[in-house]
Amino acid sequence: VRHPAVCEALAPTSGYDVVQQFHRVRARTLLLCAPLEIDDYAVQSMPDASPIKWHLAHTTWFFEQFILKSLVEDYRPLDECYERLFNSYYQTLGVVHNRAARHVLTRPTVADIMAYRRHVDEHMEQLLYAQPENASLASLVTLGMHHEQQHQELMLTDIKHAFFNNPLLTSYSGHKPKLDAVQPAIELQFVSFAGGLRIVGVDAKADHFSFDNEQPRHRVWIEPFALSNRLVTNGEYLAFVRTGGYRRPEHWLSDGWQAVNAEGWERPLYWHESLESEFTLHGLAALRLDAPVSHLSYYEADAFARWAGMRLPTEFEWEIAAANAPVKGNFFESGALHPTPAVRTSPEEVSLEQLFGDLWEWTASAYSPYPAYVPAGGAIGEYNGKFMCNQWVLRGGSCVTPQDHMRATYRNFFHPHSRWQFSGLRLAR
Amino acid sequence: VRHPAVCEALAPTSGYDVVQQFHRVRARTLLLCAPLEIDDYAVQSMPDASPIKWHLAHTTWFFEQFILKSLVEDYRPLDECYERLFNSYYQTLGVVHNRAARHVLTRPTVADIMAYRRHVDEHMEQLLYAQPENASLASLVTLGMHHEQQHQELMLTDIKHAFFNNPLLTSYSGHKPKLDAVQPAIELQFVSFAGGLRIVGVDAKADHFSFDNEQPRHRVWIEPFALSNRLVTNGEYLAFVRTGGYRRPEHWLSDGWQAVNAEGWERPLYWHESLESEFTLHGLAALRLDAPVSHLSYYEADAFARWAGMRLPTEFEWEIAAANAPVKGNFFESGALHPTPAVRTSPEEVSLEQLFGDLWEWTASAYSPYPAYVPAGGAIGEYNGKFMCNQWVLRGGSCVTPQDHMRATYRNFFHPHSRWQFSGLRLAR
Amino acid sequence: VRHPAVCEALAPTSGYDVVQQFHRVRARTLLLCAPLEIDDYAVQSMPDASPIKWHLAHTTWFFEQFILKSLVEDYRPLDECYERLFNSYYQTLGVVHNRAARHVLTRPTVADIMAYRRHVDEHMEQLLYAQPENASLASLVTLGMHHEQQHQELMLTDIKHAFFNNPLLTSYSGHKPKLDAVQPAIELQFVSFAGGLRIVGVDAKADHFSFDNEQPRHRVWIEPFALSNRLVTNGEYLAFVRTGGYRRPEHWLSDGWQAVNAEGWERPLYWHESLESEFTLHGLAALRLDAPVSHLSYYEADAFARWAGMRLPTEFEWEIAAANAPVKGNFFESGALHPTPAVRTSPEEVSLEQLFGDLWEWTASAYSPYPAYVPAGGAIGEYNGKFMCNQWVLRGGSCVTPQDHMRATYRNFFHPHSRWQFSGLRLAR
Amino acid sequence: VRHPAVCEALAPTSGYDVVQQFHRVRARTLLLCAPLEIDDYAVQSMPDASPIKWHLAHTTWFFEQFILKSLVEDYRPLDECYERLFNSYYQTLGVVHNRAARHVLTRPTVADIMAYRRHVDEHMEQLLYAQPENASLASLVTLGMHHEQQHQELMLTDIKHAFFNNPLLTSYSGHKPKLDAVQPAIELQFVSFAGGLRIVGVDAKADHFSFDNEQPRHRVWIEPFALSNRLVTNGEYLAFVRTGGYRRPEHWLSDGWQAVNAEGWERPLYWHESLESEFTLHGLAALRLDAPVSHLSYYEADAFARWAGMRLPTEFEWEIAAANAPVKGNFFESGALHPTPAVRTSPEEVSLEQLFGDLWEWTASAYSPYPAYVPAGGAIGEYNGKFMCNQWVLRGGSCVTPQDHMRATYRNFFHPHSRWQFSGLRLAR
Repeated sequence: VRHPAVCEALAPTSGYDVVQQFHRVRARTLLLCAPLEIDDYAVQSMPDASPIKWHLAHTTWFFEQFILKSLVEDYRPLDECYERLFNSYYQTLGVVHNRAARHVLTRPTVADIMAYRRHVDEHMEQLLYAQPENASLASLVTLGMHHEQQHQELMLTDIKHAFFNNPLLTSYSGHKPKLDAVQPAIELQFVSFAGGLRIVGVDAKADHFSFDNEQPRHRVWIEPFALSNRLVTNGEYLAFVRTGGYRRPEHWLSDGWQAVNAEGWERPLYWHESLESEFTLHGLAALRLDAPVSHLSYYEADAFARWAGMRLPTEFEWEIAAANAPVKGNFFESGALHPTPAVRTSPEEVSLEQLFGDLWEWTASAYSPYPAYVPAGGAIGEYNGKFMCNQWVLRGGSCVTPQDHMRATYRNFFHPHSRWQFSGLRLAR
Repeated sequence: VRHPAVCEALAPTSGYDVVQQFHRVRARTLLLCAPLEIDDYAVQSMPDASPIKWHLAHTTWFFEQFILKSLVEDYRPLDECYERLFNSYYQTLGVVHNRAARHVLTRPTVADIMAYRRHVDEHMEQLLYAQPENASLASLVTLGMHHEQQHQELMLTDIKHAFFNNPLLTSYSGHKPKLDAVQPAIELQFVSFAGGLRIVGVDAKADHFSFDNEQPRHRVWIEPFALSNRLVTNGEYLAFVRTGGYRRPEHWLSDGWQAVNAEGWERPLYWHESLESEFTLHGLAALRLDAPVSHLSYYEADAFARWAGMRLPTEFEWEIAAANAPVKGNFFESGALHPTPAVRTSPEEVSLEQLFGDLWEWTASAYSPYPAYVPAGGAIGEYNGKFMCNQWVLRGGSCVTPQDHMRATYRNFFHPHSRWQFSGLRLAR
Repeated sequence: VRHPAVCEALAPTSGYDVVQQFHRVRARTLLLCAPLEIDDYAVQSMPDASPIKWHLAHTTWFFEQFILKSLVEDYRPLDECYERLFNSYYQTLGVVHNRAARHVLTRPTVADIMAYRRHVDEHMEQLLYAQPENASLASLVTLGMHHEQQHQELMLTDIKHAFFNNPLLTSYSGHKPKLDAVQPAIELQFVSFAGGLRIVGVDAKADHFSFDNEQPRHRVWIEPFALSNRLVTNGEYLAFVRTGGYRRPEHWLSDGWQAVNAEGWERPLYWHESLESEFTLHGLAALRLDAPVSHLSYYEADAFARWAGMRLPTEFEWEIAAANAPVKGNFFESGALHPTPAVRTSPEEVSLEQLFGDLWEWTASAYSPYPAYVPAGGAIGEYNGKFMCNQWVLRGGSCVTPQDHMRATYRNFFHPHSRWQFSGLRLAR
Repeated sequence: VRHPAVCEALAPTSGYDVVQQFHRVRARTLLLCAPLEIDDYAVQSMPDASPIKWHLAHTTWFFEQFILKSLVEDYRPLDECYERLFNSYYQTLGVVHNRAARHVLTRPTVADIMAYRRHVDEHMEQLLYAQPENASLASLVTLGMHHEQQHQELMLTDIKHAFFNNPLLTSYSGHKPKLDAVQPAIELQFVSFAGGLRIVGVDAKADHFSFDNEQPRHRVWIEPFALSNRLVTNGEYLAFVRTGGYRRPEHWLSDGWQAVNAEGWERPLYWHESLESEFTLHGLAALRLDAPVSHLSYYEADAFARWAGMRLPTEFEWEIAAANAPVKGNFFESGALHPTPAVRTSPEEVSLEQLFGDLWEWTASAYSPYPAYVPAGGAIGEYNGKFMCNQWVLRGGSCVTPQDHMRATYRNFFHPHSRWQFSGLRLAR
């Protein structure tokens, strides 16, 4: 049986299907650039972020490196130097351009990179038409498409960070979503789940795409638990801030308290010091108390939960709770580009809202391999496995994630101090 | 039924019992100082290490702070300033002296600190005699004794690091253990374990001592697994080094590869560059190929396992395998102060050697709370819980751990880059 | 009598004259941008460098801030935010945008900044026509023009550094100068000067422009000295490199030796590791042994001189030697954009070649105020005075300095570790 | 004629004389240790400071390295390893133990180092008796004695810094000097000096000792100047602090303002935040408003002078003013170990007080070589010359300088951010 939480879209069944999806994904990447000036493409406001043009080139490089170079006889790269410039972290492929200095790459120009995209797109199209039945090719292309979707999200988080670090506080998108007036958030309630032996993860041979870090499907023992029906709101987090949350060590993990002091954290990354507005992709906006609090580090999410007398869910609690939920929510496609207040979807019983979309939800689970996890051979094996240390799992996708990129078993991961992603929290107990 | 792997010693059953054990533990701390000169007591060779005199004072402070100040009416601290100087990390108790600057505290002198120890010891003895039936007191004293035992181990790892960073390469102890001539290590074999639902951890109400991070006792689902019968040896690790292990990124976690390059790692911390000798608590000694490789970071342990086509055990695999093993091995009491070659203890079947003692074994488990873990209230709650982030679990104790400090459920934890502990690895698959 | 080494050009005598010169200087700034793509304008390859667009805006801000805002009633800045964004270091004017994060300013766009330039240029022109006899205005405009010329040079050094840090090694200008074939450099000889009481510096009331740091004109006692007839060549410096110059501490100042080791210096900044080519504004080019060695730090210049058994000249020795020399040489106007081999200008006697242009010459003089130096009042007083600590004086201008910017009394200054300027050395003894 | 400002003491005229002086200097070093516990000898509270035991060993090493090893046939060092451990910065002698890690050297112990001192002292005595007429030997010994005197001063500044960084605020010496009650400082007045051609520095062949950096004697042209009759007081500096001196960038050099912000400077290093007391070698003491302000960095001294509308003297102005003054003042021998209020010595005319002793006086002169300065050959040439970059000259000695170490031509030097020396300022205009 097909997993109910799997999106239909990015799971091509034929080479022709793949071509269509390939062009759709590639085109959406360009669409994200529409509001930008050429001046915006090279900015890198911190080492964790990358320039827009680098994202455009790296996603292209991925297809060239892992597909065209190995499957197309006599394939001639557009520029030999790109192999090094646009390699992100595949050490086994050779020298990698210093990550923190991607902003120095004024050349190739945006125009050059657009030509690079066209060059690779054309060769990919030819290849896909030539080998429509090549399942391994289809599988690699599907990986490449999901990879590009991950970068689509990063393009938005990275440009948001860059615009925030410019006193002009430029708006990425003028299309502010129309929302109802601020009103009390729906009541915070808990939904209970029985414990027992459960199955999580994905089988590598499932008929839909998954990353290797979601595999294999395996059993886990779960104690009974309960999850809050919605994400924690700005209003609730504001109470934490106002009662001295950032000044009291007892709420914080040891490394978190160190970050608070070393970085001078006093509130979420994008909140204005007045605590009355926050920076969004639409520019500075009033802080809606009924909307989810976003751009938290793991440390902040954990501290809030501790302050509230609760905890974060484990990734398996989350997955079990989400296993049968439809993959719907405030994704990139809504155009909101910002989390929105939870709406009660079930009038009679308390239901879990905002599981998908709105914000990535920090879990209490360190990012580790599943039992018997084996990364792919060769450079592609560096995709996920080597990051399984010092990072934490987030689940559910966000308002800047493409909807057809998401599923219940999806494991995102970031370092616990990271704040520039669309990350929030749901409470557990 | 009493857990078989629990030591008998540090589980006092009466107040008088406690007094005896208290004096025994306190005396052993002083015994460790016997080979040292006054000059050695204040050294701090890196921020993670502490001066010997600081360990002497901090373990004393622990009893004063958590017991005498709350249970002895009109207790007068020997010096008000010690509260701040010898607080390690209990933020809720107020200002803490900067950890990295403990070496600056030339005063109080060693003589002053010895007087401080006597002062506290006397008041502790009076208290224990006065309240022989006070179970909560006995429980706190037991915690304090185990706390002091942890610092006994740290005193040896810290002084080893300091002596290593002095070109004189001073020996801590001249009593070199007499070992058989180097011979081939016993064959590396694997012992298999069935999967299934297992119980791990300790019940808080068990009749023996455990730290709160070992609680509660709970179920886990385990897939079938196998563990190597002994620790990885210097000889095996040398092959990894010689075949370019430290120069090939494919073996390493991403953060590990960064550490290799940033720190210039080329071999284990205490190996001489000739790859023929290593620094020990007995000074520079020939590298025994049949002895376990030690002082590895998690990154190195993980890279070796990956290179060998295997992996590290999870902490639960280790605990299940060790559950019925006696807590015997090359502990501090052996006097070796260094890991020794594995000896086959069972002539007929392959058995797990070196589970306890010799070296702490890195596991593949991030240090996280057990389900429904609740730290204690107040400052003592900072003992373990707040470190459950960015650290990894080690199991089994080492050649500098007191034997009566150890049990199968014991969870030690360090950051993955840490190398100054007596840490090694056992393979799993 | 007019000082012979003063350029005629930038010393306007009337308001109309000023307008003409103002437009000429402003236009040349734009001319420097001709070879660049929009992509190149925002790059900042290190904190000491600035983006091209920032230079374009800051030089404009200077006129707005120090002239339009105070002299034009009801002057409305184009954008209030620019006051902060394009302030370089005038702390008394308020908050300054973090210097190292200038590259984050994707907005205002290049187009916006060009509009800003036009806006300010128009108001400046109106003001200058309205107040043709305002001497203080003419004086401030002249300062602003020299300020803009300084940034013209920085634009070229900064873009060179950025292109060098991109593996594509883009050429700024395809117009490679046509030079004679490499031939032996003219013989290194020394020109002697008598000692005695000499006069250096400029009188504030002189009839030509000077920066305040060149004032006042004052007496110094000089011992007899001799200067080499030309700059040190690549060939001579190569001998220093080849004989282990960068590995022998005895040649180096203590802080220099620290820089060599901390930064891993092994050769001049732009030399290729083959020691056979160097990066230039025309891309990678063969290393001409007869051309002057360039892009040296003070430490390297000093170490070479020490190795050669000589020393660097003091700034007064240089000034005295150059006092009567015409301000001619390989300046920006030659189009070479790179130092060229010395040519003997006087067939009979040994003369000092390359005094002006080619390369800034490090002197042995710390950058300190002249006796009775008084900086201007107000924010403009921060122009020069506050940097008179930890920097060293360079003299003579370079191949990217506008010729009409230079004079014999001109004092340039940089930190001793700086290598990205067109800096070389002349020997003294 | 003998220079009037030269002390009589440390200028031995015969070998026997040398022996006596040698023992006197060596003994005084030990005298400084009298108030210390063994615990205090190894502390190094920052990289610029050194442990007491290191000073004891290094000054001994100096005699061993530069004299015994070259002049005593078959001289056997006490320990080969000391050559490296106690080399301060003589790179040409080989590997130097990492300066910042001197505190890690718990061995050799203090007892070992005392034995080392005796070993070297005995060999030195034998050598001096054996070669009483060896002028070059006498000259090297004299250098070694002055070297040891420099370290005597550093021992006191370094232990002061260490005690200050311990919340116990231990007093080095209980002998508080008896001073008159606080009273208004003597009026600040200026003494004028005519300009003209003057002679400064020392001739290498002078009949008294001088460091090579004071040589050669040479002419300088000086403009008329005036110096304040005494050092700036705590009371005067307090007004600077109270009127926001540390918060207004206009008073500060650019690098100074950066230090203020990066280091969080708000007052002189040893002042208590109440601005009412300061840490001294006698422990915490009331801040005497009539005593000189001490432990200033160059940046602070310069900022104060700027705020006061004046400037610092150049080193030559100071030397000319001090040329005929007797070398008398509040030196180490007074026992005060702290600067004391100025006393008017000449009832009729205004005279320069506190020229010698009390505090080193920051000058406006960068530490540069005198014309034709040539450092000695070999490793000893590293003594002074290689530091002639990024440091500033101080003159006059301090309350912890031995009186017979000082003379008017003496050039001390420190980095401009250094604050742990006994440094203050005198105004000039």
